[in-house]
Formats: sequence, structure tokens, C-alpha cells
Amino acid sequence: MQPFKLTEEFLAKVRLLIEATNEGELLALFEELHYADIAEIINELETPEAIYLIRLLDSERTGDVLTELDEDLREEILAELSATEIATELSEIDTDDAVDIITELSEDLAKEVISEIEDREHAAEILELMRYGEDTAGGLMAKELIQVNENWNITTCVREMRAQAEYVTRVHSIYVVDDSNVLKGRLSLKDLLTSPNDAHIKDVYIPKVDYVGVHEKSEEVAKVMAKYDLEAIPVVDEMNRLVGRITIDDIVDVIREEADKDYQQMAGITQDVEADDSILDLTRARLPWLVVGLIGGLGAAMIMGGFEDIISEHAILFFFTPLIAAMAGNVGVQSSAIIVQGIANDDIKGSIASRLSKEMLLALFNGVILAVLLFASTWFWKGHLLSALAISLSLIVVIVMAGLIGTFIPLFLNKRGIDPAVATGPFITTSNDIFGILIYFWMAKIILGI
Amino acid sequence: MQPFKLTEEFLAKVRLLIEATNEGELLALFEELHYADIAEIINELETPEAIYLIRLLDSERTGDVLTELDEDLREEILAELSATEIATELSEIDTDDAVDIITELSEDLAKEVISEIEDREHAAEILELMRYGEDTAGGLMAKELIQVNENWNITTCVREMRAQAEYVTRVHSIYVVDDSNVLKGRLSLKDLLTSPNDAHIKDVYIPKVDYVGVHEKSEEVAKVMAKYDLEAIPVVDEMNRLVGRITIDDIVDVIREEADKDYQQMAGITQDVEADDSILDLTRARLPWLVVGLIGGLGAAMIMGGFEDIISEHAILFFFTPLIAAMAGNVGVQSSAIIVQGIANDDIKGSIASRLSKEMLLALFNGVILAVLLFASTWFWKGHLLSALAISLSLIVVIVMAGLIGTFIPLFLNKRGIDPAVATGPFITTSNDIFGILIYFWMAKIILGI
Repeated sequence: MQPFKLTEEFLAKVRLLIEATNEGELLALFEELHYADIAEIINELETPEAIYLIRLLDSERTGDVLTELDEDLREEILAELSATEIATELSEIDTDDAVDIITELSEDLAKEVISEIEDREHAAEILELMRYGEDTAGGLMAKELIQVNENWNITTCVREMRAQAEYVTRVHSIYVVDDSNVLKGRLSLKDLLTSPNDAHIKDVYIPKVDYVGVHEKSEEVAKVMAKYDLEAIPVVDEMNRLVGRITIDDIVDVIREEADKDYQQMAGITQDVEADDSILDLTRARLPWLVVGLIGGLGAAMIMGGFEDIISEHAILFFFTPLIAAMAGNVGVQSSAIIVQGIANDDIKGSIASRLSKEMLLALFNGVILAVLLFASTWFWKGHLLSALAISLSLIVVIVMAGLIGTFIPLFLNKRGIDPAVATGPFITTSNDIFGILIYFWMAKIILGI
Repeated sequence: MQPFKLTEEFLAKVRLLIEATNEGELLALFEELHYADIAEIINELETPEAIYLIRLLDSERTGDVLTELDEDLREEILAELSATEIATELSEIDTDDAVDIITELSEDLAKEVISEIEDREHAAEILELMRYGEDTAGGLMAKELIQVNENWNITTCVREMRAQAEYVTRVHSIYVVDDSNVLKGRLSLKDLLTSPNDAHIKDVYIPKVDYVGVHEKSEEVAKVMAKYDLEAIPVVDEMNRLVGRITIDDIVDVIREEADKDYQQMAGITQDVEADDSILDLTRARLPWLVVGLIGGLGAAMIMGGFEDIISEHAILFFFTPLIAAMAGNVGVQSSAIIVQGIANDDIKGSIASRLSKEMLLALFNGVILAVLLFASTWFWKGHLLSALAISLSLIVVIVMAGLIGTFIPLFLNKRGIDPAVATGPFITTSNDIFGILIYFWMAKIILGI
């Protein structure tokens, strides 16, 4: 099939059918749709319409639909459903997705829902997963996986796999464990297809298998899976026992969320928001940086106010403050962004000192080019040699300083275990602006001999 | 295995062994390593050392190592290898990876390499893939896949699959085609394991399968695969014939590259660079924005120069220009970034007009809060009511204008088929700065009655 495209017409039709409570046609319409498409449709509906559909459709599909919905809408829907209804939805989805939904509920409701889940093993697995931190391998993994005992033969293995496969959406790898559930290796589909039926697993399995510990950070898991092009990775506990499996689709989500977060951080957006969020939510996300910027701007104004006595004679110095502030900010963000990406990709090698001396050279090189351009234009514009010289020379110093700060801060944050992406955000940019203007006036005063 | 961690000691040992041309120990050391780890090691070596290792190790692994290397180093290594040597490496890797490497070679060398590839079918497939644009499904797909004819029975199917599996690293899905190679559906591993041996494929296969057209854009493919949590997707030509398969590991790369590009764009970095690139490369990537910023700063200086006659009486207006420029820039980037992400995630619905009116409300709301803060601090600082009022009211207008421009530009670019991420880059920010300062002085003059 070609991917489904949601049109206005389709949406209008769905709404009409819901208004007419035309169950038959609605069921027929949704029959062929993927749960991700159904979620896309429901995201566009009003909450009561959404709840009507969730109740109407088979929970085998609505469970997965729930996991794909926008968080706000899901919250509203779950608030309307009974604990038993929620439990039915959760019974139909993988343990990792069930945990994601349950952790959004109030503690009491969560308990009630878990007690209502009919399959007690499923409920126990969900409870087990709830113990792990959201940003760890344990928080990402699902209990659904195919595992075989090294002592089985191929025939037993295939029989057991058939039974397990009932509960596992996608097979990926077949993990081999010993009697204590310790991960020993994996069995390839090829070997399964090509080995004689009475061969023992322990004689045909591949003893090499990548795995991660249950407390490993999500970002690390993402790096490992991306590096080795893995589609699934088994998760083991402290005793190397197989406890779960992480699949690449969850890692794709981690990578995207991580990228979105870094992007918003650089844009000065302090919370995860979307264009469709309310004005209040958007304000909460946007106002903090603007306030920081305002304070920075006030600081800059006060610095300039301190040089007020030279304003009548050297007005030109004041005209160039936005330029100086912008260049300090830009150079700072460029340097930080490269370091932040380098850290994210494990590409930063060598000492902080060697990084700083490289950045100094680079900033000096760029600074001289820019200063020559600025000198020529300013001299041409105002015809005042000494001012042009003072402004241009200060620019070099400001650029070098901004480059050094932009390089140092993310490296320093990373060494202290803080997310270096913070360095591209408001505080650093704003302080670069202020420092830039301060250095600029000092330098200019010295050169102009004021 | 726990993921491999490259240490300084390990690297020093490798270098010593290379210097001593100790082939035996080197082979033993690399025996157990994944090609991604070997690539990580080689990335840290000097080019002659790297070439020595590539020649020493088995081409069954060095082929994959080559695909994982940093582009610059790979280029240097390929320049030293003969066409026959390159052909041997390429024979061992998947067609999509082979194409990525071949397209980096000069046209003549590429031809020679292809003619040297022993497996003529492999060579023909590589040639076929080279026809497609790099950013399309055709440019991403590999020819390696498992396909079965709908007219086969399970026994034939398993036999043929065993043969095909020789050439396919990972199986993922089994695609079902008819006699004309038209994609009909897929066969699940479950069905394969659970159907009787004499069952015909056409009676057990799943006729629903997601696919993409060979000319579909990579970003679209990434969206589809992420949305439906697919690990592989078949690619069909205009006549619905199965021509290739895209796997999720390539999509993970697409998602990361796309995110890196957007991130660098916002940081004002115009080319894909890494912290380890040369100062010249880094300058090429960073200087363009800085020059744009410089021109913007000169523009701002000239605007301020135009108001020079009021500087002695209203110096305070000049002190606030960095603040106004920073706020205009910040608000603009915030609005653009949210729209750019919304477009990337297909979340932007409704008309441009409705977006703009929402942003106007939001900017007005934020603007008023910030203006009140600014008014209070300025009044407190300088005690001049009218100036404080003029500066604060102008700030509101500047913020609303910056928000509207920041919202409009990416929506407009997207409508015209241009990557909206450009809107977070230098040109928009810089023009927001200039417009902001211009509006500010105009407004202030009106309010102060100058």
C-alpha cells in the first residue's frame, strides 16, 4: 500500500459518521487502517469524538492507537475511561508501551488499572518495567522477545518459538539463554533454517551478541545501536540474565526527541512545545529566554550608560554596539554548536587545552578577516581612521573571546556531567553579548586614548 | 559482549604493532572486533597506517570498515588503493554501501572499479543504483533482499530463501512477488514456521505491505518508516515491480544527518563540519554567517547614524539598541524554530493566516509582559518616564513584528518548496535585528515627539 494521507474530506466524513453514530460505516472505514493512521485521524478530533471512536474500535488496535496519540489528547481520553477499560487497552500492547501510558496516570488509578489487567504475567512484567528510570535501557525495553534454551534441539526450539511468537510483534533475533536465564548468544534465522532438526542449540548458536545493561542511559543505547546498525538489542541485569529487549523504533524516537530538544534549546525554547500548543504553554516555553535576553540587554544598556561621558565625541562607538553584540553571540553559538555535536557523536578527542588553542587560531583568523572588512567599511563611511581602527581591533578581541567561551563552556559542562547543549542556550549567548560590549568599550577607550 | 570502548592504550598498541609490521598479532587483535569498531580505530590512525591495516585485514570486513570511515580519510585511502583492490572491497559489501563509496571516486576510476568487480550481477546492481538521486528512495535502497514467488510452496520457498540468504545480511521481511516481479505482499516468519510444507505462498502471504516509490524523497521515506515503526520497506518502480529494499539503519542515518543539518543551520554554520576538521574548512563553514552578521551590524550602525542628531539629548535610546536587536532576533528564532519543527513533523495544519494571528496574540502577550518589566527597570534606572515609555512600547511592536516574520518566512519557504530550516539561519535573524532597530527609533521618535 502507498502510505495513507489524511485529507480534509476524509476527516469531515469521519466527523459526520460519528455525529450520526453510524457504527457500521465507521468500523468499515477504519478496518483497513494502520493504528498510526488512526491515531493521526483521532489527533484531529474533539475529545468526545475521540473517546467515542476509542470505545467503538477493537481494543486490539486502540491500545496501539493510544500509544501514538498526542500526550494532551491521550490524557483527556484516559480521564474519561474506566480503570477496566484502560486495562483492556493495555492488555493488547507491548509492555514497554503499556508502561509509558501507565506512568501518565495518577498513582491510585495506575494501581487500579494494573489490578484489572487479566493476564497476570503481563501485569507483573509491566510492574517490573515501572521500576526503571525513563531514560535508561530498562525504561526503554519491552519484555516481549523470543528466547530459547541452549539445551533445546531445533524441533523444540521451533515449537517454543511458535508459542512465544504469539506475543511478539516482531521477531528480530532469537536469544539463547542457559538454565539460569543468563544470555549466552543468539541464533540466526539462517542457522535455524539450515540446521538439522535434532541439532542442539548449543552447537549452532552464535556466542557473540551485543547487549546493554539495564541501567545504561538511553543515549548510550542509541549510540551503540546506531554504531552497530542493530535493529534490536537484548538487555541484561547485573547477573547477565536476559531481562528485556530494546527495538530500533524506540531508539528512532529517542534520537528524534534528543535532536528536537537540542534544537529547541538553541532556539531558546525551554520546554518541549509544538506549534499547536496553547498560547499559555508556548509562553511558558518562550518567555524565560526572553526575560534572560531582557536582563542581558539591560546589562548592556548599563554598560553603555557608564560610557555616556564620551557619547557626544565618540557617538560612532555606540552605533556599533549591536554589531559587536551580534558577532559575539554568533561566534559563541557557532563554536558551542560544533563542540556540542562533536560530544554527541563521540568525536571530541584530545585535551580541552588543545581544543581551546585550535579555536583561538580559528577565531583569530576569522576575526582578522572580519576586522579588515569592518575597518574598510567604517573608514569609508565616516572617514575617521582612529575610530575605525579602534572598532575593528576590538572586534578581533571580542571574537576570540567569544570563540574561547563558546568552546570552553560545553567542554566544561560535559566534564561535570551536565548536558553540554545548555551552552548553546540563552545564558551563554547573553553573557557573550555583555562581555563583548564591555571589552569593546574598554579596548576602544584605550586605543582612542580617552 | 559489552560494547567496545577505544582506549588510548589500545590505540598505542595498534600503532606499535603496525610500526613493527607484526601481522600475526594485529590479525589476532582485530579478529574479534566489529567493523564499526575497526573503523573507529582506523579513524584515529595516520593515513599510511590506515592503508596498511586495510590491506592486511580480510576484505570481507574491510569493505564494511570503509563504509564507516570518516569521509576525508576514506578519500585518502581510496586514492592509494588500485582499482582492483577497491573492487575487491566493494564485492564484499551491500550494493547501497558500494554505491556510496563509488560515487566518491572520479568518473574514470569508478568505471574501472566497476569493470573489475568479479561478480557481474553485483556490478550490474551497483550500476543500476547509481542512476538514482542520492536523496531518494532509490539512492538509499539496496538490492539485497529476500523475495519469493507467490506460486511457490513452502518447501521451495525455504530452499530459495536459504540460497538468497547467503547474500543478505539481515532478513527482515520476506517479500512476495508475482511472475512479473510485481510486489504482492509479504510473508511473515510466523506463517513460514507454522504453515504446512506443501502450502502455496499465495494462500498464506499477507497482501498488505507498505512500500515506497523509487523516486520518493529520503525524508518522506524516513517519515513513513518512523510512523509505522518499520525496520525495512520495499521499494517499487513505476510499474510496482520490486526493485530494492531500504533498512532502518540507513534511515537512522538520514534522521541524524537531517537533525545535524538543521542544528548547524540555526547555529549559522553553512557546511557540514566537525570539530576535527581543518581551520580552513571550519572557516569556510563559519565565515559566511559572520559576514552576513557584519553587514547587518553595519546596517544597524548606519540606521543609528541617521538618528545622530538626537544622540546628545536622548542618549538612552542608543543604550537600548543591543537589547532591541537581541529581542527581535530571539523572538524571530523562537517562532521560526517551532514552525520548522512543526513542518518537519507534519504537525502544521490550518492556514498561514490562522498561524499568523495566533503568533500575533502570543507575541503581543509576551511583548506586554516584557515591556512592563523593561518599563519598570528603565524608569527606576534613569527616572525618565517618557523615555522609559517610548522604549517599552517600541519593544512590544518590535516583538510582534519579529514573531510575525519568524512565523511567516518558514511557512512561505515551505509553500515554495524550499527547506524552511533556512528561516532560522543568518539572513532572517540579521534582517530582524535591522528592522527591529529601525522600528524602535521610529516609534521612539514619535512617542517622544522629536
